[in-house]
Amino acid sequence: MAEEKALTARAEDFAAWYNEVVLRAELADYSPVRGSMVIRPYGYALWENMQRALDAMFKATGHQNAYFPLLIPQSFLAREAEHVEGFAKEMAIVTHTRLKPAEGGGLEPDPASRLEEPLIIRPTSETIIYAMFAKWVQSYRDLPLLINQWANVVRWEMRTRLFLRTAEFLWQEGHTAHAAEAEAEEEARRILGIYREFMDGWMAMPPVLGRKSESEKFPGAVRTYACEAMMQDRRALQAGTSHMLGQNFSRQFDLTFQTETGGEDYAWNTSWGVSTRLVGGLVMTHGDDTGIICPPKLAPIQVVIVPIHRGDADRQVVLEKAEAVAKALREEEVRVHVDARDGLTPGAKFYEWERKGVPLRIEIGPRDVAQEQLVLVLRSAIGGQPRKEALKENAARAEVRRRLTAYQRALLDAARSWREENSHRGITDYARMREIIEESGGFVYAGWCGDAACEDKVKAETRATIRVLPFEEFRSPEPPKTCIVCGGAAAAEAMWARAY
Amino acid sequence: MAEEKALTARAEDFAAWYNEVVLRAELADYSPVRGSMVIRPYGYALWENMQRALDAMFKATGHQNAYFPLLIPQSFLAREAEHVEGFAKEMAIVTHTRLKPAEGGGLEPDPASRLEEPLIIRPTSETIIYAMFAKWVQSYRDLPLLINQWANVVRWEMRTRLFLRTAEFLWQEGHTAHAAEAEAEEEARRILGIYREFMDGWMAMPPVLGRKSESEKFPGAVRTYACEAMMQDRRALQAGTSHMLGQNFSRQFDLTFQTETGGEDYAWNTSWGVSTRLVGGLVMTHGDDTGIICPPKLAPIQVVIVPIHRGDADRQVVLEKAEAVAKALREEEVRVHVDARDGLTPGAKFYEWERKGVPLRIEIGPRDVAQEQLVLVLRSAIGGQPRKEALKENAARAEVRRRLTAYQRALLDAARSWREENSHRGITDYARMREIIEESGGFVYAGWCGDAACEDKVKAETRATIRVLPFEEFRSPEPPKTCIVCGGAAAAEAMWARAY
Repeated sequence: MAEEKALTARAEDFAAWYNEVVLRAELADYSPVRGSMVIRPYGYALWENMQRALDAMFKATGHQNAYFPLLIPQSFLAREAEHVEGFAKEMAIVTHTRLKPAEGGGLEPDPASRLEEPLIIRPTSETIIYAMFAKWVQSYRDLPLLINQWANVVRWEMRTRLFLRTAEFLWQEGHTAHAAEAEAEEEARRILGIYREFMDGWMAMPPVLGRKSESEKFPGAVRTYACEAMMQDRRALQAGTSHMLGQNFSRQFDLTFQTETGGEDYAWNTSWGVSTRLVGGLVMTHGDDTGIICPPKLAPIQVVIVPIHRGDADRQVVLEKAEAVAKALREEEVRVHVDARDGLTPGAKFYEWERKGVPLRIEIGPRDVAQEQLVLVLRSAIGGQPRKEALKENAARAEVRRRLTAYQRALLDAARSWREENSHRGITDYARMREIIEESGGFVYAGWCGDAACEDKVKAETRATIRVLPFEEFRSPEPPKTCIVCGGAAAAEAMWARAY
Repeated sequence: MAEEKALTARAEDFAAWYNEVVLRAELADYSPVRGSMVIRPYGYALWENMQRALDAMFKATGHQNAYFPLLIPQSFLAREAEHVEGFAKEMAIVTHTRLKPAEGGGLEPDPASRLEEPLIIRPTSETIIYAMFAKWVQSYRDLPLLINQWANVVRWEMRTRLFLRTAEFLWQEGHTAHAAEAEAEEEARRILGIYREFMDGWMAMPPVLGRKSESEKFPGAVRTYACEAMMQDRRALQAGTSHMLGQNFSRQFDLTFQTETGGEDYAWNTSWGVSTRLVGGLVMTHGDDTGIICPPKLAPIQVVIVPIHRGDADRQVVLEKAEAVAKALREEEVRVHVDARDGLTPGAKFYEWERKGVPLRIEIGPRDVAQEQLVLVLRSAIGGQPRKEALKENAARAEVRRRLTAYQRALLDAARSWREENSHRGITDYARMREIIEESGGFVYAGWCGDAACEDKVKAETRATIRVLPFEEFRSPEPPKTCIVCGGAAAAEAMWARAY
């Protein structure tokens, strides 16, 4: 432990820092399966807390969970492929269903078990879900149908990064059917609002919201809405998307219903999702050169108590106090862990829990017990407040919730400030835009004529893409007049950035 | 709705009844993917309630959740296969990673994307998990390692039945590593105790606990413990298993640790699981010819309120009362649904919610509002109590929790009585055992010499297997002296039955 190397500094190599911090905070590990990762208990606990918060929001807005098959007949995707060009085809394909002993030892797929029609591990579930909806929906009375699924999906990615891009990942995918276009549109936007509320209020990772351009939208969608957050390296992370699918899938899967007036129509669909990628976003939003930082509302451990003692006499009294404080805090629904391990110095424990981003540490030594005080130490300093403070025990206990709440808010404020400090508005000169993107990085707000050729040119020359055409609230006070690329009339303000 | 056919009676055709009731209670549906089912929202809500209860028990005993890859290299299973004969080889095998347009339309696996080593969709995760444990565990200080995973698995089953046997199913799989054999043994039994507590206390499906015979145990295990419940057709359902794996997997995956005395040893492992099969068990334990019955502690809806009105004047006052009662009950954490749908008769609603097994219905009509009363109707009568009763509103509200608790207990009592009434003890005559198994069915407790030949003979002749060698508490007061098959000395009492 003592000989452990410090993390690479973010300023030195952000990508190296990210990998190291994810591994050393024990969020995840590489697996022997190419492109797949293992989510370790600490990382999974973060994901569970995210799930719990999101699941409650989905249910509060009338959505129900269900579960659909992992394996999708190839012909279902072919059907989609006919109408959706550009559908990603990198997928895991099941072709056999039995292993047999191989000559020379080991096992091999039994040729006799070859499937007539290959099955695809779901890369997303629109096809199978809308095929089932078609079976369940007869009349407008069966609508809206508001379904969510928590599941694993597989996309055969060549270049993978822990949490951010892996062949298999965990996510939720919502799928809904509505009797009217306007209702589906409202649903797609409602969900984007839920995602935002979650990212702001729980992750302290404030996203910019808007619509994707035609070339960046989900191919099966009429419109794609997205949440784009800024990481500490000033790159954008697409953190959640919500698609208005129109009647595209309904037409493919014959999802019709009897209307209120006795006619027949295709249903209107939406789909939307966030994934374990959010864990990566959380790391890249808040981590520092010491380790990750967990926003208190999502932290698996909100408070770690480190008892400090030398002799055995001390040990007893300090551990008892630690347990008593932990008990009192648990009664207030604070997630507390007492680190009573022997054989580790307090310093080593401090370092470990800072690396793992526990928001608040309480140190208790014999002198603290004698003086009826606790030493509170925040994971990092927040504006104007001392990071470390000894408080009388009763005051300290009462202070814990307040500190956690203040820390949660401070993380959001800091992330929002970072985003705004690194957002460049009113840029009208393409050379200047390139300079920003290639040197400092950040979000560049500028006019766009709406032509894909201009978008393509920026992408080819700078690797920046239009992340979103921001919603009004995120737009600049002064709307741009001209396209930053061709100088033609601006059809919209676009937010450009390099992205994960 | 009115023209809907009644369910097939259980006495007439239990298997047909089961399929109908699962479909018509909207627990699950067939999917277009052979062998895979869709878990519909109502069935999934039951599973979520099961998960919540079990997950809390696992966490309370120090287990942590994590997530491991879906896809396992073929060589991992080959390694296991070398040392474990009889390992099931019916599995979904991924051989390609890209689709390309096929000649003549559609898509096909791109031959250029063929994997050098095929990947297997996990049928269970021992291999990948113990490979990771080997990476994480260095010293006895890292033990015990107590991990659980909620996941989907695939086993290529030819004959499938909703919930009971499907190619893909959802489950939890626990995997632990310990420094000492006795600790692993204790863990395997602790988990069996948790399963039992859950099945008794939540599912009202009381299992018989015991050890599997050599021929029925998990091939990779030293000992397999199991929970066996009796269904209404008197067949056994293996509802949960817990395996003491010894050092079998540790040796295969080099899971060693430095002992406290400085030596090196292989870790001792356990694995254990329950699956969505439990939903099928719940249906077959409690359902009746009207529909399923949900034990209150797991019921997605514990109380359904059906407002009964004719004119619009009635409507308003009745609906208001229904909402007020629902609100009051929700404050006491009762899961309530108000069925305010128009266009359905009260009778149709009653029938629908009975089919879906809601434990308690509250009817509210204008006369009830006027008389300040509520009509409480239990899903089915329980001993000595009237099924339907009008109570003054305050009394009725206070009564709801009591009725739900009493109903939960009554379901357990009834299931336990059923099991015991259909358990045959002290059977010493093989012809009599055959008669029981082939005519009425049930659990037969009888002596067994311990020889697999006797076990095989019974299986071949009656299709009954030794479900468990019961733990002491479940054994007959008088231990059997002779083997029911060969007449030799009995080595143990065995419980035989036909099983799902």
